[in-house]
Amino acid sequence: MKKRGVKRGKAVTVALVQMACGPNPAANLAKAMERIRQAARQGARIVCLQELFRSRYFCQTENDAHFSLAESIPGPTTRALAKAAAAAKVAVIGSVFERRGEGLYHNTAVVFDARGRLVGKNRKMHIPDDPCYYEKFYFTPGDAKPGFQVHALAQAKVGTLVCWDQWFPEAARLLALQGAQMLFYPTAIGWHFRDGPAIRRSQTEAWELIQRSHAVANGCFVCAVNRVGREGHLTFWGGSFVADPFGQVIAKASSHDEQMLLAACDLGKIDYTRRHWPFLRDRRVDAYGGLSQRYLEKD
Amino acid sequence: MKKRGVKRGKAVTVALVQMACGPNPAANLAKAMERIRQAARQGARIVCLQELFRSRYFCQTENDAHFSLAESIPGPTTRALAKAAAAAKVAVIGSVFERRGEGLYHNTAVVFDARGRLVGKNRKMHIPDDPCYYEKFYFTPGDAKPGFQVHALAQAKVGTLVCWDQWFPEAARLLALQGAQMLFYPTAIGWHFRDGPAIRRSQTEAWELIQRSHAVANGCFVCAVNRVGREGHLTFWGGSFVADPFGQVIAKASSHDEQMLLAACDLGKIDYTRRHWPFLRDRRVDAYGGLSQRYLEKD
Repeated sequence: MKKRGVKRGKAVTVALVQMACGPNPAANLAKAMERIRQAARQGARIVCLQELFRSRYFCQTENDAHFSLAESIPGPTTRALAKAAAAAKVAVIGSVFERRGEGLYHNTAVVFDARGRLVGKNRKMHIPDDPCYYEKFYFTPGDAKPGFQVHALAQAKVGTLVCWDQWFPEAARLLALQGAQMLFYPTAIGWHFRDGPAIRRSQTEAWELIQRSHAVANGCFVCAVNRVGREGHLTFWGGSFVADPFGQVIAKASSHDEQMLLAACDLGKIDYTRRHWPFLRDRRVDAYGGLSQRYLEKD
Repeated sequence: MKKRGVKRGKAVTVALVQMACGPNPAANLAKAMERIRQAARQGARIVCLQELFRSRYFCQTENDAHFSLAESIPGPTTRALAKAAAAAKVAVIGSVFERRGEGLYHNTAVVFDARGRLVGKNRKMHIPDDPCYYEKFYFTPGDAKPGFQVHALAQAKVGTLVCWDQWFPEAARLLALQGAQMLFYPTAIGWHFRDGPAIRRSQTEAWELIQRSHAVANGCFVCAVNRVGREGHLTFWGGSFVADPFGQVIAKASSHDEQMLLAACDLGKIDYTRRHWPFLRDRRVDAYGGLSQRYLEKD
């Protein structure tokens, strides 16, 4: 395919905070607050934290005691995030275990602008359930109308999706169709201690690949933020990354160390890429109705 | 994620015929027929040819003389394919420039069973238009109802999509939802002679990545078949490959040589992979209605 040079546009520096989490939520929260300040000092305009950064990944077991980790929005964590965003003058994407009501809990991404205002939230839509990831026990799936919603920051239009949402092309597409320029995926995914090297490699490959494919299919930036470190049976594989609108990885973090991953994202690349790879032009919207079905057996 | 060993299931050997095409359609057709025989001798049960294998890739210019390359179905090419399939006792997936009626032309994938019967066809749904790929001039987009249809061969349920269709997650998903176990993508894609090495690399990467992502998202096999060789301004990049249901490449062809790529596809891997990565279980079909829209601006 014949391609011309990129015309430079507005660049937005993002920071992805890849952390290990200890047993003390207050300490994890304090660490995240400090990382937000650091990111701002290093020039970030949008800082994204990993999924459920305030605690260890408690979904490895089904234990009703863990519900006490949840909090309402607004609540202590979102107030802290708002304060950190305003103080550092950066937009912040966080993740909270949300108590929406008695017996009603969500895994929720929250977006604050650089003045500390809550611009929007997205409750995790696709909930996994797999040994060591017993999330269906804890989290009610999101029920917003529409189900996937974009948030306009001064820096960019952003879409947030949470971990398991990352495996579903539908979710990324629906945000891109709303004008999302950057998709953020706060994540907690790791290897089971029994997984051998080949399985580990195939898992991290598939995980990076599916998210890069959302960048390609939609011509937008994709930022994935994962935790690191051993917790119980799982070793979280880090590997946070930023992909450009043609799926090229422009920044990538370690698989085992804490890291602040910075990347300058030239938003001019979005229109440029889509002009050369005009998938949005050619979608067959007349033929996609079956996507709202579970399965399409022939009778 | 904790994973157990794969239970072996039914293995189907596929052959992807990666060819260079000369100026003489009869010679290209004869070469393809010979490759089908070879593939069968080597144990293939399904043979897939590249997009528009009977001619050079004529869409590099808009020239109405090229319409004379088209033929009806049935026509000489599909009769030859049917005969080759029956003689070699293999299923064959071919690609024809179809003349459906006066002034009505399609880019059509055709599927023959091992007895040479036409099991089905898929007219290319998404039509590109880009310098050197002036396909909107030649091809009317497919209009089947439903738009994407699976074909049951004795070997496997197969879905066929054609080249540009490969960039659209919607297409792969709609075939998987109909039970497709293997997706075949006959393709003609290459580098423009002005493209530098970095652009070439990013293009082949994105091309492989988006198709592997369909394997991951849907837990099925993906087989991409591309041509090789220089034709006019384009050098077709070959690189035909087979990906397993977790997106791992299990066979990959050269970027510059003709090749018969064989791969044994264990269909037992499909259910195995989906049990461990149960994306079909968790799709939010209640929230995907917007996918049938062109764009979702807020008012």
